[in-house]
Amino acid sequence: MKMLDEREIIGIFQARIAGRKGFVPEDVEFFRIGGAGMAFNIDTLVEDTDIPPGFTPRGISRKSIVACASDFAAKGVRPKYGFVSVTLPGRPSKKYVGGLADGIAAASAEHKIRILGGDTNEGEELSLSVCMVGGADRIVRRGGAQNGDLVFATGPFGYAAAGLRIILGGARSSGRFGARARNSVYNPVCRLDFGVAIKSLMSSSMDSSDGLSATLNEMARQSGRQFAIHTIPEAGGIQEFATFNGTEPSGMVLDGGEEYEFVFTAPERHKKRILGAARRLGVPIIEIGRVVPGDGVEFGSDGDSFCIRDGGYRHFRGR
Amino acid sequence: MKMLDEREIIGIFQARIAGRKGFVPEDVEFFRIGGAGMAFNIDTLVEDTDIPPGFTPRGISRKSIVACASDFAAKGVRPKYGFVSVTLPGRPSKKYVGGLADGIAAASAEHKIRILGGDTNEGEELSLSVCMVGGADRIVRRGGAQNGDLVFATGPFGYAAAGLRIILGGARSSGRFGARARNSVYNPVCRLDFGVAIKSLMSSSMDSSDGLSATLNEMARQSGRQFAIHTIPEAGGIQEFATFNGTEPSGMVLDGGEEYEFVFTAPERHKKRILGAARRLGVPIIEIGRVVPGDGVEFGSDGDSFCIRDGGYRHFRGR
Repeated sequence: MKMLDEREIIGIFQARIAGRKGFVPEDVEFFRIGGAGMAFNIDTLVEDTDIPPGFTPRGISRKSIVACASDFAAKGVRPKYGFVSVTLPGRPSKKYVGGLADGIAAASAEHKIRILGGDTNEGEELSLSVCMVGGADRIVRRGGAQNGDLVFATGPFGYAAAGLRIILGGARSSGRFGARARNSVYNPVCRLDFGVAIKSLMSSSMDSSDGLSATLNEMARQSGRQFAIHTIPEAGGIQEFATFNGTEPSGMVLDGGEEYEFVFTAPERHKKRILGAARRLGVPIIEIGRVVPGDGVEFGSDGDSFCIRDGGYRHFRGR
Repeated sequence: MKMLDEREIIGIFQARIAGRKGFVPEDVEFFRIGGAGMAFNIDTLVEDTDIPPGFTPRGISRKSIVACASDFAAKGVRPKYGFVSVTLPGRPSKKYVGGLADGIAAASAEHKIRILGGDTNEGEELSLSVCMVGGADRIVRRGGAQNGDLVFATGPFGYAAAGLRIILGGARSSGRFGARARNSVYNPVCRLDFGVAIKSLMSSSMDSSDGLSATLNEMARQSGRQFAIHTIPEAGGIQEFATFNGTEPSGMVLDGGEEYEFVFTAPERHKKRILGAARRLGVPIIEIGRVVPGDGVEFGSDGDSFCIRDGGYRHFRGR
């Protein structure tokens, strides 16, 4: 009996469910009801798969809200209402359930989302399905980058992957980098206010939580353009962390994922307004490249560039 | 450490999440975005808790769609779009995933719902979170029954509970009853077209999948009225089944649950139109009682009535 990987599983669902014919993957779904446009997202977090050790119940449910809101950030849409379906193992304690509820309450308040309902279920392991919906005239698509557009990323990349290596693999780190790396695992933030603020300035955008390389490749593919990258937005101190622990920094930066940042493109004429919004909202933002004719994601300059592949299979060219 | 039951768990979530202050439980959530009213529901099905042995993957995912649509039936709203978050154990086979996808496709087509998206996740056990949304100017509430209104139920009750006793407990049954009881477990149907057709005629309504007694009590409580029941809508043959297997029929009928029927109230002047719609759509419908001043749910006539309690704790009165 053939066993499937995730891509094959998604492929089967897409092929067999009629409503998804000609399906183009997006961060959120966009639809209209009664003339009103809206965006919807569901994001399920499964404890044993998605949650490393050391999380509190409050931290787990907070992360489930941040993960769902991050997809809205990239689409420039403010989610208005939320719904949470909680599956709990066995008969949990009041402290445990209270922690989960407090995490949902705090994170939804932080993102100005009103939780309207949901349900509770019993299962073998904790899982939280968070849904959000918000009004939108349109969403910023993953495809849509134009030749000449600038490519930006919010926040540097690599802290979450380094944090996981510290938490799971016993990697060691000097104080400040280690604290920030661990914090990016336990207290992720997303860029909702910034995404909403620059909605009309972006030509394409995508949440980066599946990893920077996967995000860049998907955007380039859907846009039918090449993303020419000149700057890898790597976390400060990750080179030293990697050397100290005898590992490679590029995998953590390009393929680590679990960063609730987003990658976007915009015409150069909007650069000043974008940087102004980032400064005003305290969001670190890095100009990492430019959109050019072609395909794929290239890093470097002529004659000394390499291809950044989806998932980190990097292949050197031009040498 | 104190362990909580489901009611206590729900209570904690309701109390701590700000958006749910003054929360009145409903089958679906109603909200407005951009002036458009809409109804939303999320329903999670967990294999090891909610699925008895003998189900196919296709049957499981079909049931998850029916369960979610049934809540819309009771509210008189047609769901337009659906989203499914699937958590799968390990690396499943193509046949298994294909069965799940086919069940979603068939059941959503059957209910004229377009599945727009969702996600896939890995976990220890299969679970499906189904969300649906549909346009609605309002929903028929659980509360709202008026004195003098008639109380109706779709479909007779008890088949699903009897079916579970056959499947799980080895209860025995004569051919036709047993086949129907098993079928009501494996191929549940909901009354979506009927609920939508009589929306404007109902004064209150509620999905009965948590059990008939729980449903009647919740509706009476939210309406601030008594439901005086004269007819228990029991499945034909359930008395014989119970006698043959040395058990009580009333628990199966009143508290069994897992029937995707609904209970509703309506002014007597709408009775003819309601019966006409039921006949046209082939929905079995039973007039079971009347709404009167008071509280709770009473069965029988003066001096020989008993109280139908939520969950089946029945207490005899007036004797």
